[in-house]
Amino acid sequence: MTLPTTMNALVLKHGGLSDAPRTGAAIDSLEPYLDYCPLPVPRPGPGEVLIKVRMASVNPSDLYFIKGEYGQPRVKGAAAGFEGVGDVVDGNGLYARYLKGKRVAFVGGVAGSGAWAEYIAVSAATCVVVKPAMRDEDAAGHVVNPVTAWTMFDIVRQSGSKSFIFTAGFSQLGKLMAGLARDHGYSMIAVIRKPSQAAHLQSLGAAHVLIESDPEFDARLAALCKSEKPRVLLDAVAGQRAADIFTAMPARARWVIYGKLDTAPPTIPETGQLIFMDKKIEGFWLTKWFKRASLIEKLKTLRGVQNRFISGAWKTEVVATVKLSDAMQDLPEALKLGDGKVMLVP
Amino acid sequence: MTLPTTMNALVLKHGGLSDAPRTGAAIDSLEPYLDYCPLPVPRPGPGEVLIKVRMASVNPSDLYFIKGEYGQPRVKGAAAGFEGVGDVVDGNGLYARYLKGKRVAFVGGVAGSGAWAEYIAVSAATCVVVKPAMRDEDAAGHVVNPVTAWTMFDIVRQSGSKSFIFTAGFSQLGKLMAGLARDHGYSMIAVIRKPSQAAHLQSLGAAHVLIESDPEFDARLAALCKSEKPRVLLDAVAGQRAADIFTAMPARARWVIYGKLDTAPPTIPETGQLIFMDKKIEGFWLTKWFKRASLIEKLKTLRGVQNRFISGAWKTEVVATVKLSDAMQDLPEALKLGDGKVMLVP
Repeated sequence: MTLPTTMNALVLKHGGLSDAPRTGAAIDSLEPYLDYCPLPVPRPGPGEVLIKVRMASVNPSDLYFIKGEYGQPRVKGAAAGFEGVGDVVDGNGLYARYLKGKRVAFVGGVAGSGAWAEYIAVSAATCVVVKPAMRDEDAAGHVVNPVTAWTMFDIVRQSGSKSFIFTAGFSQLGKLMAGLARDHGYSMIAVIRKPSQAAHLQSLGAAHVLIESDPEFDARLAALCKSEKPRVLLDAVAGQRAADIFTAMPARARWVIYGKLDTAPPTIPETGQLIFMDKKIEGFWLTKWFKRASLIEKLKTLRGVQNRFISGAWKTEVVATVKLSDAMQDLPEALKLGDGKVMLVP
Repeated sequence: MTLPTTMNALVLKHGGLSDAPRTGAAIDSLEPYLDYCPLPVPRPGPGEVLIKVRMASVNPSDLYFIKGEYGQPRVKGAAAGFEGVGDVVDGNGLYARYLKGKRVAFVGGVAGSGAWAEYIAVSAATCVVVKPAMRDEDAAGHVVNPVTAWTMFDIVRQSGSKSFIFTAGFSQLGKLMAGLARDHGYSMIAVIRKPSQAAHLQSLGAAHVLIESDPEFDARLAALCKSEKPRVLLDAVAGQRAADIFTAMPARARWVIYGKLDTAPPTIPETGQLIFMDKKIEGFWLTKWFKRASLIEKLKTLRGVQNRFISGAWKTEVVATVKLSDAMQDLPEALKLGDGKVMLVP
């Protein structure tokens, strides 16, 4: 097969981080941030594979990133998109050539070659060969959210408590976590925005839901903290509500921040709790986990994640599949459709 | 020797925590919080010793405690005071009886028997036999501050950086830490309030001082963070200044809060740093350390601490010694004298 020399991609208009006030994951138009235009097909460097993209996922982290709000600098002129699934069509190096012809899930994008394109070049070592029984829809988003859910659930398991609190509970990550919790006998206390989300999340495995607008929120939280004794707060919001939940939690609580949907910085009401109640505030970043975890730990995690999708224990809920060439116009609308995932296809 | 049945003490007027707005360590009058009055001499319970107090120290934690602002509930009618030195005059249990006649340093006070009295009953296991070469002035305050300094310095040693930042740098703890840092080849960056404190703290061992009112504070801090790469912020203040220092520190910084001199809760300006820069916020409490550390670790620490005082590497700077019977009137004035310790003697 002869490879083309150019391809189409959604390309970053700006480099670095943004100085503008943060607006979070919401996006009304891609025009300020992206162009749909031709780029040269990337050439795999040493140890890299070239992948023909089948499907790429759209995560909140992608939206933060293209707006320059993700804490990682953008590369102007590079394709956007962190994650997807595709077929390896070329490789540079022994392992890279071994992968040729295989369907792989991949994570890329920060260093200059993105998933929202027809082709992407990534390190062969970070590719995950996808079992044939797994759907593209599940494979395209099976690293960022599912591996994050799996590894953060390990934090819960090490906490010594059979309960934990999860903010932004109706996110893709929250839904994955609900199933993990139920299947392992843990009680997930999910904080959600809309009453209409409660039943579905409970059917997926959440033991308790707290609705942000509930006037009884504080009292219900206090009662659950007393009965369930959650010690981990997994938090994508990092706002004042999360700080107040953390304050209500019992001794030895850990506030693990992995996202910042809220744009206003939180105040810690009771710093004395850090001293006398042995509480801690820290972060979680999947990239860091990938750097620190052993190869065996990674393989075990990825096998566990794939098996959950193949068995049907996890299922990616897709609300829209948008063609790359239509994305400039259709993606913002698709993202407003609801609480499932949006996929991009070349 | 026949023991008396009553003694004089400074006795807590209120139980529990205070609901009033916090005012910190400053104290104008003891009247609202303490009475000087007779109490029964406490009887040692199982495993406890009775100590005839020689000298008790006045720490900021004592002042927080009597005001109900220390995070630990007061016991109404009990003697105040956490720490001192004295002679064991009675014991209940094998080890307690072995200690009879020995000079010991002790920590007590929270559970109902305090050091600001003629006698105190404490657990024999928590007493530290004091070497004869050690002065009462050094022994009376040789647990809370020096052991805290020693154990917090272990956090610095484990950080992988040869530098750390210390707020409230001219405190007793700051002075002890400066000597420890210099003698072990570490660069302490001390944050202090008054320019007049700088020279003395540097002579004790601080490598750098930052003065809070310095208009160049932020620029000097940024330069030191770049050149020294401190990874630990040891902080007794827990206010916005500390939060901003933490934000200016490099990746993997830990903000270790062990006191809260500031009464306004801090805002975390950049929660993203917890995620992407692997920063952490936590607390340190000596009581927790005492519960968790092994006996060998404790003995090693206490021997190390005593040897530093005996060799003269550490010296307790006493600005006033107040008689227990004069304390209601004289203690508030003595505490305003300056930056050394105030001692109470029966």
